[in-house]
Amino acid sequence: MTPTITAFESSPDRGRGLARDMRVRWALEEVGQPYEVRFVSFREMKEPPHLALHPFGQIPTYEEGDLALFETGAIILHIAQRHTGLLPQDANARARATAWIFAALNTVEPPIVEREQTRYAEGDKPWHEARRPLLDGRVRRRLDQLSSRLGDADWLDGEFSAGDLLMVTVLRRLEGSGIVEEYPNLSAYVARGQARPAYKRAFDAQLAVFTAASSR
Amino acid sequence: MTPTITAFESSPDRGRGLARDMRVRWALEEVGQPYEVRFVSFREMKEPPHLALHPFGQIPTYEEGDLALFETGAIILHIAQRHTGLLPQDANARARATAWIFAALNTVEPPIVEREQTRYAEGDKPWHEARRPLLDGRVRRRLDQLSSRLGDADWLDGEFSAGDLLMVTVLRRLEGSGIVEEYPNLSAYVARGQARPAYKRAFDAQLAVFTAASSR
Repeated sequence: MTPTITAFESSPDRGRGLARDMRVRWALEEVGQPYEVRFVSFREMKEPPHLALHPFGQIPTYEEGDLALFETGAIILHIAQRHTGLLPQDANARARATAWIFAALNTVEPPIVEREQTRYAEGDKPWHEARRPLLDGRVRRRLDQLSSRLGDADWLDGEFSAGDLLMVTVLRRLEGSGIVEEYPNLSAYVARGQARPAYKRAFDAQLAVFTAASSR
Repeated sequence: MTPTITAFESSPDRGRGLARDMRVRWALEEVGQPYEVRFVSFREMKEPPHLALHPFGQIPTYEEGDLALFETGAIILHIAQRHTGLLPQDANARARATAWIFAALNTVEPPIVEREQTRYAEGDKPWHEARRPLLDGRVRRRLDQLSSRLGDADWLDGEFSAGDLLMVTVLRRLEGSGIVEEYPNLSAYVARGQARPAYKRAFDAQLAVFTAASSR
């Protein structure tokens, strides 16, 4: 059964692949699972039919037969558990890869989101500039620790896993800030993720949505 | 094999059970798994032996034979997958319960943490008071959505699950703010979680650590 995911009808990042559907697309490409995409507008995301799928009115969602899922982490874990290619076979190694999924989403991403959304939510406030070093510092503290742990390894724990997939997409949210570039091993890690054929297919697919919309 | 978790040697919340070891204790109590606790000081948490277990220098960690795990969400999912009592049997219902684990940690908790830590990190800044309505508003937006979804159900999706366990502990972080009390169904939901015998055993165990330390 072909799953259906949701994505922004009009990508706020102009096809840079930073929206969360990119994460699910990449996971589906890694395991070779074809999928359908249903596009939703910002208005539709806050209306009852979409809220029935996603109580917090976000994308992506995932529908497959009787199953409807929300939360990118849960969707990717579901895909990873049901296919080969995103989690190791060994039970302990699988549990550790799952820890990296949570680390990417719960420990590394929150200060990155906070730094990013302050521009939209508080960019016009008098304290905006004064708070920047504090927000940057919180991001760097996590990247210091992540960089120390990665060292000169290719991936966070053995083979490429769903944990790496999420960590790479989380770090990509810092594009343009120059912060990841302060850590050569993290820059190389992100580039290694982006060089994967499955990443490229997923990226091209989401870019095509933006290109088609902007040529209409 | 009895697992060992880590917890703060000296609880910053004075035994109120808001530290993340409480979440893992509760999960272990729900499934009836005995456990050991190793206490770490704030200094030890940032030193190499603990960083080898937890790359971001936090608690809790989880050790069981050859397995060492970090990230509360991953630890609880590991416990839930290996025992009965924290996830439904049906595969689709299990995936949905997992979505609530991620929703608690990734969607509901981040604005709550942000609201909380701004007091410590920015309590002395001139903008602190002016930002409070904005931070409270972000928390209320998520609680509006959560309250709508919960409705008059006892738990988020059928029987009590690891998703409820995490959501209850996340909402407890708002204690004293008066915000949860604005949502009678969420207040009742938190109380329902706290009334579970496994919750009480976990709470008493972490409180005993504080009581013993303060009587020394």
